Amino acid sequence: MPVTLIGTELGGRPNFLTAGWIARVNADPPMIAVAINRANASPEGIQKNKTFSVNLPTAAMLQVTDYCGLVSGKDTDKSGIFDIFRGVLTGAPMIQDCPLTIECYLTETVELPTHMLFIGEIVGGYANENVITGGKQDMKAIDPLLLTMPDNSYWTLGECAGKAWSVGKRLVRKK
Amino acid sequence: MPVTLIGTELGGRPNFLTAGWIARVNADPPMIAVAINRANASPEGIQKNKTFSVNLPTAAMLQVTDYCGLVSGKDTDKSGIFDIFRGVLTGAPMIQDCPLTIECYLTETVELPTHMLFIGEIVGGYANENVITGGKQDMKAIDPLLLTMPDNSYWTLGECAGKAWSVGKRLVRKK
Repeated sequence: MPVTLIGTELGGRPNFLTAGWIARVNADPPMIAVAINRANASPEGIQKNKTFSVNLPTAAMLQVTDYCGLVSGKDTDKSGIFDIFRGVLTGAPMIQDCPLTIECYLTETVELPTHMLFIGEIVGGYANENVITGGKQDMKAIDPLLLTMPDNSYWTLGECAGKAWSVGKRLVRKK
Repeated sequence: MPVTLIGTELGGRPNFLTAGWIARVNADPPMIAVAINRANASPEGIQKNKTFSVNLPTAAMLQVTDYCGLVSGKDTDKSGIFDIFRGVLTGAPMIQDCPLTIECYLTETVELPTHMLFIGEIVGGYANENVITGGKQDMKAIDPLLLTMPDNSYWTLGECAGKAWSVGKRLVRKK
């Protein structure tokens, strides 16, 4: 799973929670969903603000990214950890040091037994210039973090293995 | 995003669709959600059977995995591609060659503009013995595929970068 930092505001202060239970869920308009444990502080902020941000940390941010998953916004002020910037939405602060960030408007909430699944429409996306080549992201420059459970390990991205919707073409039978 | 093959049955025949828009969404009971474009054949099968499987292909399966995303079950019979096995559910065939597979019972469907988000409870998980060490999965042995968009590239897993809920502990202030 990808490692992200979910940005919200709690009592007017930026808060960031490490999250890996996240996926794109709709193409047009672009939407993303993230599942967050109800015990965390972020669900209240997301529901109140109706917004959230998704920030993709680079592997160099490993330690601080893990820290944001170790301590809760309920008893720890995480507002001073990162230099932030804002897009068009209120309540969705983004992290300057993250090479890719997006801001989302909450469109639907699915209440699950232990988690809240927040579905948001992406209204803005931001990338550092040095990770963009030919209008697309350079994944090796981004150097994202991945997470696996239950071994609870972070990983870096390996090698490019091929192009999607392409390498399988030789198996398509000619009609 | 992780690369998976979603298994269902269409007209009594196994069908597998490549999917990367997938994430865990609940801890207890364990639940997973996958978003599938409405234009595909799989949504009908999942809704009819109320089940689906999630199969994690190994990087050696790159070509056939991409193929399953290139052709639709609507006009191509994909039932003969893989050797399959079944768990406890009907309509959720799993792929023998995939080192990790799970079978899910559909608990909720969220209809989004272009995609259907299927939320399922995991009722069975299966792993090849040779990818399990000490009761947990050996990610390097699994050798999973990752996908990035919009550059549409497959990737392998890189190196272990640290332990989650651990490497950030040195930033936690003593009280």
